[in-house]
Amino acid sequence: MTQTESAPMLLTPASLLAHWQGHRRLTRRVIEAFPEDQLFSFSVGGMRPFGVLAWEILTISTYLMNALHTDQWGAETMSREPKPQERTALLAEWDALTARLDAELPGTSAALLTTEKDLPFGRQTPTAAAFYMIDNEVHHRGQGYVYLRALGIEPPPFWER
Amino acid sequence: MTQTESAPMLLTPASLLAHWQGHRRLTRRVIEAFPEDQLFSFSVGGMRPFGVLAWEILTISTYLMNALHTDQWGAETMSREPKPQERTALLAEWDALTARLDAELPGTSAALLTTEKDLPFGRQTPTAAAFYMIDNEVHHRGQGYVYLRALGIEPPPFWER
Repeated sequence: MTQTESAPMLLTPASLLAHWQGHRRLTRRVIEAFPEDQLFSFSVGGMRPFGVLAWEILTISTYLMNALHTDQWGAETMSREPKPQERTALLAEWDALTARLDAELPGTSAALLTTEKDLPFGRQTPTAAAFYMIDNEVHHRGQGYVYLRALGIEPPPFWER
Repeated sequence: MTQTESAPMLLTPASLLAHWQGHRRLTRRVIEAFPEDQLFSFSVGGMRPFGVLAWEILTISTYLMNALHTDQWGAETMSREPKPQERTALLAEWDALTARLDAELPGTSAALLTTEKDLPFGRQTPTAAAFYMIDNEVHHRGQGYVYLRALGIEPPPFWER
């Protein structure tokens, strides 16, 4: 985190990247913790299975990285393609986005990250959108923890990133 | 969010406050959504009931606000008192912390918020600790959503803050 006496930055593109990737590593471990035959089928209370939630997380994160690159923010740029109900495909796309975040986010201008855009979920800055997406990931991953416990499986520790 | 051409801040004490309070308002609605007799008893997969998780969230958030005020960061400053298993008491303490965050966080110096301290969960900046606490809140609240669904209750919308 860059600091100066006069105006320390609470958050930089680099620390946003580290925060996000830490969460993504943990979510990846939760994806791996499910038995293959439960990832896209098991749920509690009629909710969506964890594999479906993980694809949603990946889709909206990819949308944001695309939009930062193209400056196209409309809902039509968000993928609506049906996703394979397979862990291997999910993890391959997950890892591709990991590499892309590492490559692209540190060089994203702070000016762009703090300029309001018309996103499908309302007018907000890309930074606020990134936090909304991280929060959505943490929210759904917490649900995945309950699914794992209900399956009798110990989830990975929350504090390990 | 304060912006200049040269070095826009991705996050300020004011935007951190707004982000945190938005999450705390949503968590409060989840506390209210539970039937009184289920808040401290119902769970899934042997996990802790939501009322117990909510007290934990409140305890660590209060610890951070105390530490920012006193600059005492040791684990011994974290409350270990048993908490009443009553929604009224929980919400009263919740609302007291809401008022305290509004009063104290905007005036907290950015220098203090970005200086590493020895916290019970490791050496980190108060800003990183605040995000860890918010993430912990979102994580446990996501579990509360599953409990509510398992009870046949529609949870409050995630996007409403």
